[in-house]
Amino acid sequence: MGDLMISKRSQMLPASPIRKLIPYSDEAENKGIHVYHLNIGQPDLETPEIYFNRIRSFSGVDAYTNSAGLMELREKFAEYYKKWGIPFERDEIIVTEGGSESALFAIATVADPGDEIIVIEPFYANYKAFAAILNVKLVPVTSHAENGYDMPPISDFERVLTSKTKAILFPNPGNPTGTVYSPERLSEIVNFAARHELYVISDEVYREITFDGLKAHSIMEFGHYDNLIVIDSLSKRFNACGARIGAFATKNETIFKNVLKMAMMRLSPNRLSQYGAIGFFELNDSYYKTMVKEYQKRRDIVYEELSRIPEIVISKPQGAFYFAAKIPVDNAEEFVKWMLTDFSVNAKTTMVAPLSGFYVTPNSGKDEIRIAYVLKEKELREACQILGLGIRAYKSERKSSKV
Amino acid sequence: MGDLMISKRSQMLPASPIRKLIPYSDEAENKGIHVYHLNIGQPDLETPEIYFNRIRSFSGVDAYTNSAGLMELREKFAEYYKKWGIPFERDEIIVTEGGSESALFAIATVADPGDEIIVIEPFYANYKAFAAILNVKLVPVTSHAENGYDMPPISDFERVLTSKTKAILFPNPGNPTGTVYSPERLSEIVNFAARHELYVISDEVYREITFDGLKAHSIMEFGHYDNLIVIDSLSKRFNACGARIGAFATKNETIFKNVLKMAMMRLSPNRLSQYGAIGFFELNDSYYKTMVKEYQKRRDIVYEELSRIPEIVISKPQGAFYFAAKIPVDNAEEFVKWMLTDFSVNAKTTMVAPLSGFYVTPNSGKDEIRIAYVLKEKELREACQILGLGIRAYKSERKSSKV
Repeated sequence: MGDLMISKRSQMLPASPIRKLIPYSDEAENKGIHVYHLNIGQPDLETPEIYFNRIRSFSGVDAYTNSAGLMELREKFAEYYKKWGIPFERDEIIVTEGGSESALFAIATVADPGDEIIVIEPFYANYKAFAAILNVKLVPVTSHAENGYDMPPISDFERVLTSKTKAILFPNPGNPTGTVYSPERLSEIVNFAARHELYVISDEVYREITFDGLKAHSIMEFGHYDNLIVIDSLSKRFNACGARIGAFATKNETIFKNVLKMAMMRLSPNRLSQYGAIGFFELNDSYYKTMVKEYQKRRDIVYEELSRIPEIVISKPQGAFYFAAKIPVDNAEEFVKWMLTDFSVNAKTTMVAPLSGFYVTPNSGKDEIRIAYVLKEKELREACQILGLGIRAYKSERKSSKV
Repeated sequence: MGDLMISKRSQMLPASPIRKLIPYSDEAENKGIHVYHLNIGQPDLETPEIYFNRIRSFSGVDAYTNSAGLMELREKFAEYYKKWGIPFERDEIIVTEGGSESALFAIATVADPGDEIIVIEPFYANYKAFAAILNVKLVPVTSHAENGYDMPPISDFERVLTSKTKAILFPNPGNPTGTVYSPERLSEIVNFAARHELYVISDEVYREITFDGLKAHSIMEFGHYDNLIVIDSLSKRFNACGARIGAFATKNETIFKNVLKMAMMRLSPNRLSQYGAIGFFELNDSYYKTMVKEYQKRRDIVYEELSRIPEIVISKPQGAFYFAAKIPVDNAEEFVKWMLTDFSVNAKTTMVAPLSGFYVTPNSGKDEIRIAYVLKEKELREACQILGLGIRAYKSERKSSKV
């Protein structure tokens, strides 16, 4: 059987940088260590009851829905977008199996094998896997911890442009950075894309989670509609990651028609989740305010605690529920492992995500980590303190072993 | 905006041959014609209540599950396979978003762009779309109405073999044919694959639906495990198409590891559907017997009625819930449209699926149709009679227009 081969694309698929260290945390937990999981983007907040209630009331056959999704859900999406000043109509929206499927469809429809898509690193790591399975090359433009991972200047994008460049892809608000791009930068990037006949694929799944009264602007506020594709998801804003309900939206009719063929090939999204998700759109402003208030409080706690760690480089993120931070270690992945295998405080330790997997450029992000603040106040504070103690202990251990 | 391009793969994606004629049936229905839909593979039977009851009892956060699926569901799958003599263990099974995602993963993991996969035409039409999005070429070997669409002889497979051939892909029991391959043919194809270092991707989603006491044999009964991949789905056997729960299973560890990376990239299948689907495995033999009895009765009705149509070529299918038939018209797609636009009996007409979209070879299947028997006895009989009358009327109209 030695000659049976698997595809190259399959070999090139990266393992999830977030999930690959789970064996180490399993081991720690088996030893009786309590692990604070700041490594995953799974919100701990409650899924709104209205979703479950709708699903409980469902009767009939659990049949396929229209490939583009339940009409009522698409209408709810359209109404919701209009409240945000995003001019999508029902027939410009396809319900997808989470933001993941939406991203896969977006990449497949703009790029052929060998084509290039510009990404702003660090970026949502799974973009790499979608690109790999579709044989598309991700070309990085780098943002930096030192200026809060802001969007790099247009000259950086111009520098990497080739005849194979088809699109620019980024999350806004950012994962792993929590950075929210200003309208000026978004407008610049849209104009740049229009000038060079590129698409902008804007991943706006964290749209509602912004702090200090700041608004996350949609890419759809800056004209050039034919160039724009929006990726969306209900997972994070409604704590419904397991529902796998997202959206693909564009005013470009050719793109829409072709992505609809992709939607048809997999028949339909999950019916019950769609049926339940209609209920999310009935939640009023107070739902969003409560959620944002909770995350803002947590952000402030993490900021306060991380600021005490010597030599750390952080800035206060304006959105999502992540911190990206540069920490004073050589190799953050080794450090994350060490925290799980060699360090604990009162039988507790903290797990974060090393950031190198969120970069394309080799050896980048080696001294950076992502912290997801998906724990309640008291635990979150303790988890950050343990992280700080861990960094000190790790540094001093390394120092003494070098002497 | 004229220069904005979309990907070639996206342009090459076929529209669903089943779904693309829906505008014509919508129009007929708007004119007050009752359309009997024998064109779609959506079972009309009830989804077992145990599924909904489990889902109603769910409490907690609708969070991501493990990327490979809920452990309990994977265990249920493994137990179930063992009852069928299929030796899959829990850790050889990945829960997927329906059989669709399983097929996509299978193709992606065995073939790179430009590689070839042999299909037995006519075959499940969406394979074409999965191959197109992944830039894989489907190479046909043709089966024929005249011998019940049986698996072609190995010499036909040998003839199309090239250095780029990576796998053989087919549904068994067949969609659109309802054909169930004999153990002898399955064994031959496994040996052929092993000899040439190819994979066999066996789509067994209709496994339980077989007639006259015949058993559908799994590809896993014939050794050479490293060469074998099974696609499965709960959609058809439990009337739960909207649940989007399928499985990818293989004993080949390298394949498994690589498909697990694909599963990780889309995070997890739907949690509630998985939770509910565990209940399906508690259904006893009487559930399956009742379902099979119902479909067998319907098959017999369709066979009886279709046999009255002069010049039709049919054989009694042994499984699934489809008939493929060669009918005495030049162009079945035109005929299907005509049935919707120009023909009715007492304000009723019948819609079937033209079969050309289920072939790769150009101009094949032009005089063939697929009939899905997804209606209850009385309606089904009437629908077949209307189809017969339609064929006669269409032929005589064409004849007279030629004179």
